[in-house]
Amino acid sequence: MDRLNQRSTDPAVQEMIQKAEKDGIETVWDRFESQEPQCGFGNLGLCCRHCLQGPCRINPFGEEPKAGICGATADTMVARGLDRAIAAGTAAHSGHAKHLAHTLKKMAKGEVKDYRIKDEGKLLGVAQRMGIETKERPAQEIALDLAEAALADFHEKDTPVMWAATTVTEKRVQVLKDLDLVPKGIDHEISEIMHRTLYGVDADPLNLLMGGIRCAVADLAGSYMGTDLSDILFGTPTPVVTEANLGTIKEDQVNIAVHGHNPVLSDILVTVAREMADEAGAAGAKGVNLVGICCTGNEIMMRHGIPSCTHSVSSEMALITGAVDAMVVDYQCIMPSLATVAECMGTTLITTMDICKIPGATHLEFKEETAAENAREVIRIGIKNFQRRQGKKTSIPTKKETVAAGFSTEAIIGALAKLDGENPLKPLVDNIVSGNIRGVCLFAGCNNAKVPQDHNFITIAKRMLRENVLVLATGCGAGALMRHGFMDPANVDQLCGDKIKGVLTAIGEANGLGGPLPPVLHMGSCVDNSRPVAVAVAVANYLGVDTDKLPVVASAAEAVSEKAVSIGCYAVAAGLPTHVGVMLPVLGSPLVTKVLTEKIGDLTGGYFIVDLDPESAAEKLLAAIDERRIGLGI
Amino acid sequence: MDRLNQRSTDPAVQEMIQKAEKDGIETVWDRFESQEPQCGFGNLGLCCRHCLQGPCRINPFGEEPKAGICGATADTMVARGLDRAIAAGTAAHSGHAKHLAHTLKKMAKGEVKDYRIKDEGKLLGVAQRMGIETKERPAQEIALDLAEAALADFHEKDTPVMWAATTVTEKRVQVLKDLDLVPKGIDHEISEIMHRTLYGVDADPLNLLMGGIRCAVADLAGSYMGTDLSDILFGTPTPVVTEANLGTIKEDQVNIAVHGHNPVLSDILVTVAREMADEAGAAGAKGVNLVGICCTGNEIMMRHGIPSCTHSVSSEMALITGAVDAMVVDYQCIMPSLATVAECMGTTLITTMDICKIPGATHLEFKEETAAENAREVIRIGIKNFQRRQGKKTSIPTKKETVAAGFSTEAIIGALAKLDGENPLKPLVDNIVSGNIRGVCLFAGCNNAKVPQDHNFITIAKRMLRENVLVLATGCGAGALMRHGFMDPANVDQLCGDKIKGVLTAIGEANGLGGPLPPVLHMGSCVDNSRPVAVAVAVANYLGVDTDKLPVVASAAEAVSEKAVSIGCYAVAAGLPTHVGVMLPVLGSPLVTKVLTEKIGDLTGGYFIVDLDPESAAEKLLAAIDERRIGLGI
Repeated sequence: MDRLNQRSTDPAVQEMIQKAEKDGIETVWDRFESQEPQCGFGNLGLCCRHCLQGPCRINPFGEEPKAGICGATADTMVARGLDRAIAAGTAAHSGHAKHLAHTLKKMAKGEVKDYRIKDEGKLLGVAQRMGIETKERPAQEIALDLAEAALADFHEKDTPVMWAATTVTEKRVQVLKDLDLVPKGIDHEISEIMHRTLYGVDADPLNLLMGGIRCAVADLAGSYMGTDLSDILFGTPTPVVTEANLGTIKEDQVNIAVHGHNPVLSDILVTVAREMADEAGAAGAKGVNLVGICCTGNEIMMRHGIPSCTHSVSSEMALITGAVDAMVVDYQCIMPSLATVAECMGTTLITTMDICKIPGATHLEFKEETAAENAREVIRIGIKNFQRRQGKKTSIPTKKETVAAGFSTEAIIGALAKLDGENPLKPLVDNIVSGNIRGVCLFAGCNNAKVPQDHNFITIAKRMLRENVLVLATGCGAGALMRHGFMDPANVDQLCGDKIKGVLTAIGEANGLGGPLPPVLHMGSCVDNSRPVAVAVAVANYLGVDTDKLPVVASAAEAVSEKAVSIGCYAVAAGLPTHVGVMLPVLGSPLVTKVLTEKIGDLTGGYFIVDLDPESAAEKLLAAIDERRIGLGI
Repeated sequence: MDRLNQRSTDPAVQEMIQKAEKDGIETVWDRFESQEPQCGFGNLGLCCRHCLQGPCRINPFGEEPKAGICGATADTMVARGLDRAIAAGTAAHSGHAKHLAHTLKKMAKGEVKDYRIKDEGKLLGVAQRMGIETKERPAQEIALDLAEAALADFHEKDTPVMWAATTVTEKRVQVLKDLDLVPKGIDHEISEIMHRTLYGVDADPLNLLMGGIRCAVADLAGSYMGTDLSDILFGTPTPVVTEANLGTIKEDQVNIAVHGHNPVLSDILVTVAREMADEAGAAGAKGVNLVGICCTGNEIMMRHGIPSCTHSVSSEMALITGAVDAMVVDYQCIMPSLATVAECMGTTLITTMDICKIPGATHLEFKEETAAENAREVIRIGIKNFQRRQGKKTSIPTKKETVAAGFSTEAIIGALAKLDGENPLKPLVDNIVSGNIRGVCLFAGCNNAKVPQDHNFITIAKRMLRENVLVLATGCGAGALMRHGFMDPANVDQLCGDKIKGVLTAIGEANGLGGPLPPVLHMGSCVDNSRPVAVAVAVANYLGVDTDKLPVVASAAEAVSEKAVSIGCYAVAAGLPTHVGVMLPVLGSPLVTKVLTEKIGDLTGGYFIVDLDPESAAEKLLAAIDERRIGLGI
C-alpha cells in the first residue's frame, strides 16, 4: 500500500495500478522506477548535447571537468538548457493557437462548415483590443481580420507581439520594454532562442535568461491567443456542474476518451457524439459517453460539462478499466505508452494530427474541412469496439466527484456583477482589502511521476483554503483538485476557512446557487493560464497598481512539460511569486538558481520558489502573499 | 608528439598547443580529455531531457530501461533529439540571413550609411528569381522588395518558402512536394519542430524524421538567402590570392582577428581597418592586419583576400601567439573559453551581438546604423593593445600557405565561360561525361576535437583528388584544406590525378592564370553551402536530370555544430550521398540509423554515410560517385 501511495493519492488510480500489476501491464510508474537512479548531471542541468563534440558533463562538486569542451561553464549550460525548454513550451502553446487562428480564418472565409462564431461578444472585444475596426462590420469580416492579426503575431512586424502588449497592464508593458522583454514575434523568439543556444553563440547566463524570459512572454501571448480564439469559436465558458474521475466511464455506453489540448478536435466530438446516440443505441449501447483527459478534457468540461475521467500522468489508467472503446488524441502530453496499453486492452488509440503520430496507434487525419465526418469516423470505431467489448469483464472504479467548473474570467466577473453590477471588481477587491480573501493562488501545470499523484496539489491547496486564500486552477492542476473534491461546492465547509467560505457563499447565493461557489475555481486548460492573468490584470488596473504588487501567487506543484517551464517564466515576467514543486534542472548553476529565485524579483517583481516539500512551499506562498499585502498597505 | 598528432595535424596549431601547455593555458583539447569518457547514452542519442520527469536513459543493450518514463522508445528519443539539432542549425543560418535581410531593408530605406548595393547584377538576378519586378525600377526599390520577400519567407504565407522553392530543380520541387517536405515558413518550421518534439507530441520516428528534413530544407533556404543577400551587399566573390594559417599574424602590425559568421560586421571592419592604417602607424604599427577566423574569415577572404589565421576549433591558438591585439566576434562557433585565453594573453575579446555575449569579454554592441563608428572603436582597442604589447615576447608560428579563394558559383561559371562563352556549363559537363572529372565532392562543416584536427578532411581530399574528383570546400572544411596547401595552385601537381589536373589547368590557362586553378575550390562560409547547391542545380538542369542523379557527394568529415546536422539533412533532401565523419547521436536507434543511411535514399535519393575512418569513407564516397555515373550511363 505504501508503494501505491507513493504512486498516486487518487483511489481510483490506485485501483487501476493494482489491476495493471495483476495483469502485467507496464505503467508510467513502472517506467519511472526503471529509470531510477536518474542521471545526476541531467537533473542538475549539467549535461549538454548542443554539439557533436559532446556530450559534455560538468562536475557539480567543483572538480574537473569544470566546463564543456567549448568552455561552456555550468552557468552557461544550465541557462542554455532552460532556454530551450522555454522555446519548446512556447512553440507548443503557440502552435495550438496558430492552429486555432487557421481554423478561425478558414471559418471566416467560408472554407469550413463545422465551425462558426459562437461568442460574437468575445470576438468584438478581442478585435477591439487588437485595434481592429468592429463598427458596422459583419462578424465574419472581423473574424478574418482577427485571424490575420493572430497569424501576424508570429513574426516580426511594425508592432510587437500584440497578444503580449495589449494583455498586461500598461505599467507592465513599460517594465517589459525597459528590460527588452517585449517579444517581436512568437516564432521569431523561438527561433532566436534556438540560435542563441547553439554551440558558440550566447554564453552569458544572464543574457540567456533574459532572452528566455522574452520568449516566455511570447508564450503568454500564444496562450492568451489560444484562449481568445477558442472562446470565439467554441464559446466562453460559464459555470457548469459535472463529474470527474474514472467513475465517469460507463460500462453500458460507448466510452470515447478524448485526450490532448486543442478544442478544435474535441469540441466537434461533443456535438457529433450527441448526434450519434441512436447509432450507439442500435449497437446495444445506452449512448455515447465522451470523457475528457488532460487539457482538451478541461476545454470540453468548461464549455459543455463533459466529465473528465482522469488526467495526463494517469491516462493509461483510463485504458486499464477495459471499458474505453476509443481514445482519440490531438497533441501534447500524450504518452506514447498509450499505444501499448491500448493494444493490451483492445482499445483503439486514434491519433489525428500530422505532428503527433504514435507507433501502434491508428492515424485518422483530422481536417477542419471534414471535421464532423472525421468525428463520426472516430465514434464509429468506438461503437465497433463497444460491440466487441460485450461479455468481457471491465474494471471501472466507482470513484467520482462532483465538479462545478466553467469559471472563465468573464464568468467570474459575471458572478461578481451580481454583487455589484456597476463595479463587479469592487466586491472582489474589497474582500481582498478586508482580508476575507487573504490572497489568490493559482494551481497550474502537470502531474509528475516523481510526486505521488496530486499530493503536492492537495497539500498546498488545503492549506491555502484554510488560510482563506482564493484558489484558482488550470490544466492538470485543476485535474488533480477536481478528482479530490476540491471543485464540489458541498466541500466548502470542510475545506475552507471561514472568511473565504463567506466570500464563496455570498457570491454563490447572489448568483442563485443556493450555496457557495466550489472551494477551487476551475479556469480551464493550460493555455487558459491566460484567464487568471486577465483577472489579475483587471484587479491591478482597478487598483491602479501593477500585477507584481498583488497578493497573487502561482504553483506548478507537480510540473512535467516544458510548457510548465515557459508558463512559470511568464508568470515571473508578470510579477508573480511562482512555486515549482519538482526540481528544475538548474541547481547545477548556483548563479542561475539565485537569479531565478531572487534577483529576477528586482527586475520583474516575480520570482521562482522551488520547493519539493508541499508543506514548506505553502508557507512560502503564504509569506509571499502577506508580503504583497504589506506592500499594498492592507 | 603522438599526443600532439592526436590533437591536430596542423603544425602551426601543434606549436601553439605546446606553448599553451608550457604556459599552463587550458585549451579545447584539454577540456576534451577531461570530458572522457563521454556519456554513452548521450553519444547514442539515448538520453532525453525534454520534460521534468526525466532525465531518462534507455539501455542500448535491449535490457531495462527500454523506454523513457512517458514510453518514448529509443527510436522516438533519437529522432526527437536529431530534430531539435536540425531546428537549432536552421535557426542559426536563418537568423544570420534574417539579420542580413534587416540590413538590406535599412539600406534600402536609407536608414544606414555604411552599407550599399555592391552587386546590382546579383540583386536583379535574385529579385527576378523571387518574382519581383525589376524593369525600370531603382535598385533601392528592388532591394526593399527583396528584403521584404526575404523576411516574408520566415512565416507562413500564400506561397511556400521561396528561397527553397526557387533554388532547386523543378523535379526536386516535385519530389519535395510529394514527400510534404516543402517548408511553409522558416521560423514556422523551427517552431513546429520544437512543438512536435515536446513531451507527448510526436512519437513516430519516421514522422519526426520527415518533419526534421522539412526543417532542414528551410535551412537550405535560410543559407541560400544568407549567401544571396551577402553577395548583394558585399559583392559576389571573384578569385583572389591570399594566405592562411597562424603565420599571417604579423608581429609589427595591429592584429585584429575577426571570428564568427556574418559579414555585416566583418566586411565593414575590412574597410575601416584600411582607413585606419595611419592611426595604427602613429601608434608605431606598420598597419592594421585584419585576419579571419572561422566563417566570417571565409567571407572576407572570399571578397577581399583577407587572410585566415585559423578556424573555429583552433581559435584559441590565435590568441596564444600573444600577438592578437583584439578578437572581435559576432555569433556561432565562438568558444566561450576564448574569454579566458584572451585574459591570459592580454588580448581584448570583443562581443558585438546582443544574442552572443560571453562572460569576461568586452561587449560593444554593433549596430548597422553606426557600423563604421563601431568598427573604428574595435580597431582603436586593438591599437591600444598593440602599444601595450610592445616589448613583450610573441610566438607567431611562421607557417602559412598560399590560398586562391573566391570561387563563388558566378566565379566558377565565369571561369568556365572562358572555355565556352555560349555554354559555360558544357566544358564542365563534358569533362564529367568523359571522366576527366570523375565526380564532385564538397567538403563542409567544422573541425571536431574528437578528430585530430584536419586529419579526416585531408585524408579524404587527397584520395578524391588522386581519383580525379573535383573538390569544392566551404566553412571550416575549407579552412582545414587551405591550411594544408590544398588551395595553392602550386600543389596541383603533387595532389591531383592527371585528369583533374588537366581540367584545372585548362580552366586556369583560359583565364590567363598561366597555370591551374587550385586543387580545391573555396566556395565560402557555411551558409555558402548554397553555392555548391547552385552549381549542382545548374548542372542538373543542363543535363535535364534531378540533382540526385549527379555524381556529386558531400562530406562533413569533422562536424561539430548543429548547423552541420541541418546542412547534412538538406544535402540528403537535395539527393546527395553525404558523409559525416563523427558519430551522430543516432546509433541508439537502429531504425533511425537505417532510415538515414539507407531508406531515405528511396525517397530523396540522398542518404548519410556515417564513417569515422576517413580511408573507408573515401572508398564509400567514390563508390557513390561511380554508382551515379552508372546511373547516368557515363
